[in-house]
Amino acid sequence: MAQGLRVGVLGATGAVGTEILGILAQRSLPIADLRLLASPRSAGQTLTFAGTPLPVQAVSAETLQGLDLILASAGASVSRQWLPIAVQAGAIAIDNSSAYRMEANVPLVVPEVNPQDLKDHQGIIANPNCTTILMTVALWPLHQVRPIRRIIAATYQSASGAGAKAMQELKDQALDILKGNPPRTAAFPYPLAFNLFPHNSPLNDQGYCQEEMKMINETRKIFHTPDLRLSATCVRVPVLRAHSEALNVEFFEPFPLAEARNLLQQAAGVAFVEDWERNYFPMPLEATGKDPVFVGRLRQDLSEPNALELWLCGDQIRKGAALNAVQIAESLIAQGLI
Amino acid sequence: MAQGLRVGVLGATGAVGTEILGILAQRSLPIADLRLLASPRSAGQTLTFAGTPLPVQAVSAETLQGLDLILASAGASVSRQWLPIAVQAGAIAIDNSSAYRMEANVPLVVPEVNPQDLKDHQGIIANPNCTTILMTVALWPLHQVRPIRRIIAATYQSASGAGAKAMQELKDQALDILKGNPPRTAAFPYPLAFNLFPHNSPLNDQGYCQEEMKMINETRKIFHTPDLRLSATCVRVPVLRAHSEALNVEFFEPFPLAEARNLLQQAAGVAFVEDWERNYFPMPLEATGKDPVFVGRLRQDLSEPNALELWLCGDQIRKGAALNAVQIAESLIAQGLI
Repeated sequence: MAQGLRVGVLGATGAVGTEILGILAQRSLPIADLRLLASPRSAGQTLTFAGTPLPVQAVSAETLQGLDLILASAGASVSRQWLPIAVQAGAIAIDNSSAYRMEANVPLVVPEVNPQDLKDHQGIIANPNCTTILMTVALWPLHQVRPIRRIIAATYQSASGAGAKAMQELKDQALDILKGNPPRTAAFPYPLAFNLFPHNSPLNDQGYCQEEMKMINETRKIFHTPDLRLSATCVRVPVLRAHSEALNVEFFEPFPLAEARNLLQQAAGVAFVEDWERNYFPMPLEATGKDPVFVGRLRQDLSEPNALELWLCGDQIRKGAALNAVQIAESLIAQGLI
Repeated sequence: MAQGLRVGVLGATGAVGTEILGILAQRSLPIADLRLLASPRSAGQTLTFAGTPLPVQAVSAETLQGLDLILASAGASVSRQWLPIAVQAGAIAIDNSSAYRMEANVPLVVPEVNPQDLKDHQGIIANPNCTTILMTVALWPLHQVRPIRRIIAATYQSASGAGAKAMQELKDQALDILKGNPPRTAAFPYPLAFNLFPHNSPLNDQGYCQEEMKMINETRKIFHTPDLRLSATCVRVPVLRAHSEALNVEFFEPFPLAEARNLLQQAAGVAFVEDWERNYFPMPLEATGKDPVFVGRLRQDLSEPNALELWLCGDQIRKGAALNAVQIAESLIAQGLI
């Protein structure tokens, strides 16, 4: 650590991987050596880190040797295959996939919320789902002061959650439709341009999709509230890379609006954006490429004295994935855990 | 009435007005004479009704004489100015604007829900707000059987709610952005293409926008439940002309899912669309140009035994405005009120 960390990035060529490289170049994580890893298919490419070209190597037992830290964003099956090997070889793994999130011995961490959970890690640390990260950053400052009883969430999720191909598909579809041609679909089952649809992740027997169950189960784990009541409707919208969420949040007692506003204005990781005169609140286009979770339109719910309504936007690739992973690494250092 | 109705369409050149003409041509309202009215600015244009060119006349005390029925969709101030004159001259007015909706002596009607309220009309009948129409068509079949305690709504509203100019603006902005140019805004305060934002109607002191208050107040009036608890977050999304809504609906007792599904499958004005295998549910692109309110993704709320979650889409210009107005006229005839 004195000489800096030997860091691997697995899935370096993907949407989240390339964002991780950009964030590592901007921030102050001490890096002695950076190794870019990807599937054999992507190996041989060259990426740029802080102005320096670096080769992308195929992930293997050999290329996973000699790392202190590995940041993985190559999907659940890749993580399951390679992260135990990386940990065995001495690395701490921060995994952006869903592979390990709900395992009891794996901390699931949003650094603004539960950094102390990192102390219990056994090699693998999970980065939560993007919608969950954005919601927990916004609600933790309130939940700490007056516990939440129930959350009803409706999401407005961008194409980027399905990767770089989905973002390009949205743009191609928009152009198709504007030219009067039928939109082509590949990354998504249905056209997304000038359309929207319930989140296309697998549905369970209760009619909840995987994305909704992630919000429910991951929030409970991060908040250490296994009984938290939460329902969600997750929807894909034709936005490129920032998610939005409409949250109805019921507490066990009334939450004075001014107090809630004050807490959110001071909260770590939150940019509180409200201009009631201009009807100006967080928007995904303005959250794109930014670090904070943008929160606003905080209102007393007129239908329930104990509930507040709020609205948020956050960059899905950045705080929803890459930035949170890098912040976990920073928190490990700050806590002397690496 | 034996020879058919003398019908005026006020605001004939607008997005809703032209849709009304199309619907009148498709359906069986007995029309003896059709008069197209608009502002002096639009007068002189020619529109086509059922293959026949018709002139657009400037609205005036003279051109409002001799009508049995007037369908108005020219905005609240135009309705306030001209509808009392039309009624004075003998017409029944069906007004698509918000001008008269909350007045005690004006029926606010969704024909699938409260057609009996038409009996009390005093000349003016109000067509509800689009989001309210879609929601009440979907929820009335349930509310009739087990009363609703509380609704939490999040909307995904298309550009068409702001008129034909807003629809064109969305397309122009999308092309601007795809070409790498900054999007131009005029109809909306912020870019809508590849973006979204809380509904741009005026905000009240409690932080609710006009659109949200319409959903609350109009639903209470239509359902005759002045104490119904309802909160809403209304959001503009980059979709051209169909609205979507995520509704969390709490009843006073548990509502068995199979019973709710059965009621919705048989409900007037509802097309129940669910294919859980394909993750296929209502989508705004598919609701466009169609008459029904498309309802699906009906689920037991995992956070509340007495609540259901459901999802709907409906054509904002059609059932959300023009079709509902024509159906009110049809209901007047069926009830012998005109």
